[in-house]
Amino acid sequence: MTKTNLPVSGARLWDSLMEMARIGATPKGGCNRQTLTELDGAGRALLRRWAEEVGCGLTVDRVGNMVLRREGRDPSRPAVAIGSHLDTQPTGGKFDGVLGVLAGLEVLRALHESRIETDAPIVLINWTNEEGARFSPPMMGSGVAMGLFEEAEVLAKQDPAGAVFGEELRRIGWQGEADPTALQSLGAYFELHIEQGPLLERAGIPVGIVDRALAQAWFDVTVTGEEAHAGSAMPPRRDALVAAAMLVQAVEEIALAEGGRGTVGRLTLQPDSRNVVPSRVWFSVDLRHGDEAALARMGVALRERAASLAARRRVGIEVEDFWTFPLTPFAPALVEALEQAARGRGLNYQVMPTGIGHDAVYVARRVPTAMIFVPCEDGISHNEAENITPAWAEAGLVVLADAVLATAGRAKTE
Amino acid sequence: MTKTNLPVSGARLWDSLMEMARIGATPKGGCNRQTLTELDGAGRALLRRWAEEVGCGLTVDRVGNMVLRREGRDPSRPAVAIGSHLDTQPTGGKFDGVLGVLAGLEVLRALHESRIETDAPIVLINWTNEEGARFSPPMMGSGVAMGLFEEAEVLAKQDPAGAVFGEELRRIGWQGEADPTALQSLGAYFELHIEQGPLLERAGIPVGIVDRALAQAWFDVTVTGEEAHAGSAMPPRRDALVAAAMLVQAVEEIALAEGGRGTVGRLTLQPDSRNVVPSRVWFSVDLRHGDEAALARMGVALRERAASLAARRRVGIEVEDFWTFPLTPFAPALVEALEQAARGRGLNYQVMPTGIGHDAVYVARRVPTAMIFVPCEDGISHNEAENITPAWAEAGLVVLADAVLATAGRAKTE
Repeated sequence: MTKTNLPVSGARLWDSLMEMARIGATPKGGCNRQTLTELDGAGRALLRRWAEEVGCGLTVDRVGNMVLRREGRDPSRPAVAIGSHLDTQPTGGKFDGVLGVLAGLEVLRALHESRIETDAPIVLINWTNEEGARFSPPMMGSGVAMGLFEEAEVLAKQDPAGAVFGEELRRIGWQGEADPTALQSLGAYFELHIEQGPLLERAGIPVGIVDRALAQAWFDVTVTGEEAHAGSAMPPRRDALVAAAMLVQAVEEIALAEGGRGTVGRLTLQPDSRNVVPSRVWFSVDLRHGDEAALARMGVALRERAASLAARRRVGIEVEDFWTFPLTPFAPALVEALEQAARGRGLNYQVMPTGIGHDAVYVARRVPTAMIFVPCEDGISHNEAENITPAWAEAGLVVLADAVLATAGRAKTE
Repeated sequence: MTKTNLPVSGARLWDSLMEMARIGATPKGGCNRQTLTELDGAGRALLRRWAEEVGCGLTVDRVGNMVLRREGRDPSRPAVAIGSHLDTQPTGGKFDGVLGVLAGLEVLRALHESRIETDAPIVLINWTNEEGARFSPPMMGSGVAMGLFEEAEVLAKQDPAGAVFGEELRRIGWQGEADPTALQSLGAYFELHIEQGPLLERAGIPVGIVDRALAQAWFDVTVTGEEAHAGSAMPPRRDALVAAAMLVQAVEEIALAEGGRGTVGRLTLQPDSRNVVPSRVWFSVDLRHGDEAALARMGVALRERAASLAARRRVGIEVEDFWTFPLTPFAPALVEALEQAARGRGLNYQVMPTGIGHDAVYVARRVPTAMIFVPCEDGISHNEAENITPAWAEAGLVVLADAVLATAGRAKTE
C-alpha cells in the first residue's frame, strides 16, 4: 500500500484561518462575511492568491463557485475534490465552512512543497452561498452544480433588500463562465467541517467520520380548540395550547424512542391574549433519522399521537406533510479511506451521520462523497462565539489530507 | 314578608334587545358598538329615550357613566342600582352587557306601569367602556367611579388610532358634569350578565347567582435553554420549548388539583426557525381561584414545578409576578335576596363565582353587590355568534326584578 502520510502543517492552517477571519471580523470575535458582499469578494481574492501561489489554476462558474485545480498525472481520471464555503452567517464564526476550504488549501500547499504528483487531479472548491442567510435557500452553489436547483432561478433570487443574486455576483466580480453542472463529473468529494453539535467534544473524540446525511420529514401541525375566557371553568375547556404542548412532548418522545431527532422550532397561537384560552395553535415539526424506515415510523407515530390526543382533549389536530429530504448515504469507499487515514494517524474517531445540511449532502447525490467532522466548543456555531482548538483543526486536516492522497493516488515526481 | 313579584315582561325585554342590536348590527348577527363611537352615542340616546318615557331622570358624570333615576319614597335611603354596559367588542354579540342594562330598564318600566313606589330610589347605570376593546383597560367607567382609576388618566387615554378618550366623549356629546365617585354611596348594586361560559347551559340551569369574583394572579414565565440545530443529537439538547410545554401542562394540572382556573394565553419563542431548537420561550400564566389561600398554593405549586423542571431539563426558568387581583366577595344579603327571588319564581339556580371581570367586580369594592348569570349558547361571547334564548333572558330578568324590589322596599302607591 502506498504511504499516504502528507506533511501538512496544522500551524499554517491555523494562521490562514486567523488571516481569513480578519475579513469581516466582528467585535465579539466572529465573522460577518455574507455571500456576494464586498467582503465575500475579498475572501475569495485571498483564497485565489493563496492557491495561485502553489500553482493552482482557477475556474469560476456562472453561479460563482470557485474551483482551484492542481493537475494530476493521469488526464483520464476524474478529479478528487475538497470543498466547503467561505461565506458566513451575519453573526457567524471563524470556522464554519472556512475550515474545510483552508484545510483543502493546506493539502494543496503540502502537495506543492513536497512536490508530490497525484494520479488524479485535485480540486479545491469554494461553494457560493452555503449559508442561505442573505439569499435563501442555503447551499445554492452546490445545489445548482448538482442539478438540484435551476441556475436561472438562483441568479434571479433576491435578498431582503431586493438585491438580485446574479447582479450582486457580477458586482463583486465573481461570475465566471464555466458550466456549474460540469462538477457532476468529479471522481470524489471530501468535506471537512465543524460538527455544529456537542457529541465529539463531550466524548473526547477528535474526529467524526460522516457516513450519511439523515433523512428529514417536516410537518405543519394545527390544533383547533375553542376560545374561552381565562375565568371560565376548566373541565369543559378545549384548550388548543395544552393539547399542542402534549404533542410537542410527544415529538421528543418519538425521536428518543426511534433514536432519531425531533424538533418543534416554531409555534404560534391565537388569539394570543393573556386571559383567553387559545383556540388555535400552529407549530412546525422537523423529524430526522439515519434510516428511512425509522423516519417513516416516526411520522406514523406523530399522526397516531395527534389522533389520540385530539380524541382525548376534544380538539381538532391536523398534521400536514410540508417537506421531505431523502436519506443520503455517503460513499463507503471514501468513508473507509477516511477511517484508514484516522487509524494511520492514531486518531480516535467515531462514524456518525450528519443531521445538518452541507454542500456535501447535495454533492453526494451525484458524486461519491464523504465528510469529516471535528469538535467545536459546546456545539456552538452560527454564532460569534463559535470556537475550535488548533489540535482539532489539525486532526481533521491530517485525516482529510491522507484520504485525499490515497484516493487521488500518489506518485513522487522527483 | 312583602310580596315582591314584579310583573316584568320578558317579551318586551327581548324586543328592546333586538331594537338596540340594530345600532351597530354586523352582517353575521352580532354588534359592533364600540365605546365612544357615534354608534355608542346612538345606543345611549335610545336608552335615555326609553328611560325618560317611564319617568326617569338622567345624570351623566364626567367619564360618561349614565345614571337613570327613579325616585323612592324615602329620600334618606341610598339608591338600589342595576347596571351593566351597552358598549360591545368590535365583533361582539347582542347580549354581553346589553342584557343587564335593558333588564334594568324593564324593571323600571314594570315599576312605572304597576305604579309601584319603592322606599329607596332605583337607578339604572350604563357604565362607560366596560369592554376595553378600543380604550384599554376595560371597566373604566366603574373603575373611576369606585376610585380605582384616576379620572384624569382615563380621560387622557388614547385608542390605537390616537383618539383621546375625553375628546371622543365630548365629540359624541356624552360628557356630563356629575362626579363619578358619587356612585360610591349607592346602597346596593345588581348586575345581570350572560355567563360567558358553558356551565349553566350544560347543567340545564337557567340562573347562576354569583357570590364572588375569583382572585387572580398573573405571571410571566421565561424558559432559557440552548439553541441547537434540528439535526443535532437529542440527548444533550436543552430545548426551551419542550420544558415550556411541560410547564403549560403543569398549569392545567395545578388548576384542576385546586379546583381553580389556569390558563396560558400567550407564548412566544426564539429564534422561531423550523430547524433550530428554541433557546428561549416566554409565556403568560393566569391563575384564578375563589379562595385566596388556594390561589396562593397554586402560585407556590407553579414555582415548584418550574424549579423541578428547570433542574430536570437543564434549562433556566424564571417565574415573575405580573399582576394580582384580590378575591372579591359579593354581599351575602344581596346573594340571599337573589336566591329568594329564584326560589320565589320556582327557578333552578346555582351559586357560582365569576372568573371574569365585570363592572360589578369593581363596584363590589365600595358597594354591596351581587350578580346574576344566565346561560349563553356553548359559552360563546365576544363573538357575533353569541346567543341566548328568550327564556334565559326572562329567567334572569325576573330574579333581578324581584331582588331589586325586595332590596329597595315596596309600597304600593295607589
